[in-house]
Amino acid sequence: MNVQVQRRYREKREHLVIGLMSGTSLDGVDAALVAIETDQAGDIAAVRLQHFYYLPYSDELREWLAELCSPQTARIDRLTLAHFGLAEWYAHAVGELLEAAAVAPGEVDAICTHGQTVWHVAGRAPFPCPAGTANIRASLQIGELSTLAERTGIPVVGNFRSRDLAADGEGAPLVPYADYVLFRHGEKGRLLQNIGGIANVTVLPPGASIDDLVAFDTGPGNMVIDQIVQMATNGRQRFDEGGRMAAEGTVCAELLQELLADPYYRLVPPKSTGREMFGRAFAEKLWAEKDVRGLSAADLVATATALTAATIVEAYESFVLPSTPVHEVIVSGGGARNKTLLQMLRDRLPAGIQLMTTDAYGIPDEAKEAIAFAILGHETLMGRPSNVPSVTGAKRAVVLGTICY
Amino acid sequence: MNVQVQRRYREKREHLVIGLMSGTSLDGVDAALVAIETDQAGDIAAVRLQHFYYLPYSDELREWLAELCSPQTARIDRLTLAHFGLAEWYAHAVGELLEAAAVAPGEVDAICTHGQTVWHVAGRAPFPCPAGTANIRASLQIGELSTLAERTGIPVVGNFRSRDLAADGEGAPLVPYADYVLFRHGEKGRLLQNIGGIANVTVLPPGASIDDLVAFDTGPGNMVIDQIVQMATNGRQRFDEGGRMAAEGTVCAELLQELLADPYYRLVPPKSTGREMFGRAFAEKLWAEKDVRGLSAADLVATATALTAATIVEAYESFVLPSTPVHEVIVSGGGARNKTLLQMLRDRLPAGIQLMTTDAYGIPDEAKEAIAFAILGHETLMGRPSNVPSVTGAKRAVVLGTICY
Repeated sequence: MNVQVQRRYREKREHLVIGLMSGTSLDGVDAALVAIETDQAGDIAAVRLQHFYYLPYSDELREWLAELCSPQTARIDRLTLAHFGLAEWYAHAVGELLEAAAVAPGEVDAICTHGQTVWHVAGRAPFPCPAGTANIRASLQIGELSTLAERTGIPVVGNFRSRDLAADGEGAPLVPYADYVLFRHGEKGRLLQNIGGIANVTVLPPGASIDDLVAFDTGPGNMVIDQIVQMATNGRQRFDEGGRMAAEGTVCAELLQELLADPYYRLVPPKSTGREMFGRAFAEKLWAEKDVRGLSAADLVATATALTAATIVEAYESFVLPSTPVHEVIVSGGGARNKTLLQMLRDRLPAGIQLMTTDAYGIPDEAKEAIAFAILGHETLMGRPSNVPSVTGAKRAVVLGTICY
Repeated sequence: MNVQVQRRYREKREHLVIGLMSGTSLDGVDAALVAIETDQAGDIAAVRLQHFYYLPYSDELREWLAELCSPQTARIDRLTLAHFGLAEWYAHAVGELLEAAAVAPGEVDAICTHGQTVWHVAGRAPFPCPAGTANIRASLQIGELSTLAERTGIPVVGNFRSRDLAADGEGAPLVPYADYVLFRHGEKGRLLQNIGGIANVTVLPPGASIDDLVAFDTGPGNMVIDQIVQMATNGRQRFDEGGRMAAEGTVCAELLQELLADPYYRLVPPKSTGREMFGRAFAEKLWAEKDVRGLSAADLVATATALTAATIVEAYESFVLPSTPVHEVIVSGGGARNKTLLQMLRDRLPAGIQLMTTDAYGIPDEAKEAIAFAILGHETLMGRPSNVPSVTGAKRAVVLGTICY
């Protein structure tokens, strides 16, 4: 069966695949039904989103997963159950997606699933290996491929980060490969700016080859803004919808200057940051400035929004624009729906650089990551590498993932 | 690459594969280089062990793994590291095996790895699923396939238990399929008796088809004996080598009768047991009988050995012999090297049933499980099911495992 499935996949020119993405926010799973067209050489010629579905997790599941993401609370018995149980949610999302799209499972060539990250070793850590203690890389995504394959009858590709880690890469970021496939341009330089909890950019120089790619975290995305909003509303609002609260406030220029003094922003890429830097402690320190400086909650939200905008544009000015002609900044992630943030970005960008969201290219910003993993799984089934060694630090380009038929 | 690898695999008649097995004793990894010949229909025609290598774990690794096997001590960060780090040991074992066999990695078609079980949900357990709480099956084996593939350049098949669990089977036992391939006989009824920590039997009636198979745990194997020996020697001896200590003692018939009253032995198969029943607490209770009854340590080891022999033969008499003609009992596992135990089994078996070890069939008893997983991985690459639904309780026969090229 398996060899037939895969031979058929490689001999086809039109592939119908599902990408599944569940992120660190633990809120739910994104499911994208994607048509991928290949040319005679096997290169991707076109990618079309056919349908998108979002399945939110139950509160019970969210709490279960949050517990697994911490060494203090994770239990091996509950991890094992979640590894299989989460795949039932993925299977359910696939079922709902296909029903909404009126597509039969038999028409789908493959499901490509990122899984749920429960732990990612930052850098390397020591482990007793055969030749003595070695510093190794490691990351754990759960959501059992076999369950998903058994429930849907569709071949499943997953576990994408492992092979890049095995090749001594960081296993992240992996989306830049999809950015390259979807957005590279012969004459235009483009910056693919994702604004999730953290903000990260993929730099696509004009006429770039895959080895020219650079990607790094610019700093906070929505994480700080979200937390200030939650504090200001006692949790009634989880984020600043449309950027309305920020629009009502005034940026405190002095506070912003102080925040921009953080040495992270001066570090030369590649670099990455996370919840440990812009998490609760950071937001609480900011919240304390409210009374000290006589600011309103809206002023604070505006200032946090300006921090995201300023760190993004300053990163371009320090590390991208001096060497790379840039014509477009294309925004995705939750930040693409924050109008105030988008306006702040436009105001700060040098003249001649257009700012738009991925929507303008037919890719709803909430679907982009699920589409990216559909593309990665497609390449795996084509037998082609899809990590970007210049971005992850891997020793070589490798075919990512494991396959379950 | 992958489709070529797999097409080639299915079109070949001679396959060279490596089986890797690391058991619950956490002592090390068994590596077997196995030649598998298929006939025109794709059925296995012959299995030949070409080389065997055992890589013991370091004390540090053994302690790390033991810590992961308990909900009280397992940590998600250390689990994630071990998932990748353990695969370095597997890769090392493969390297040593191939060097000893003077075989180049390029000559090997696939590595088939069981991985290290860190948690197995007994039966089913509740998990919050999309349609409400569901009772699901789950089991977790670590040892990242991608690392093994990257280090060796050889395609890897693993994660065998998951698909059977997804098909609502117990995910165990999986070895009976290999027992069927290796030992079925047109006229002879055979009992494949594995004596590891726990003792389990696969019943192969004469001329059996795969659906006729029955397999179950008869009760304790070496687990109780080993623990008594460790107590008696203050840990200097880990097991009763050759059954010498048991040979020096006398079985306490009265104590043996009391132990045989345990209701587990009366349960109708399929049934399984484990460390929770015959672990430390059981051994300590037995040890306390030493002074109460005026027995020597050797008497106690002899009695524990008799318990294993008696429960095995009584299981045959209650559940196998009334319905199945049996000509041979073929012993594997550590118990195959315990001469006293083998003699006790011979003494108790009805006349006309021969007892031998797998050695008699060219399969060293320590290599049998690694060979079994080589066979399972082979079937996966052939696109063929290799669970036995009558044994695991799965709803259907499924192609096991995930593949990393």
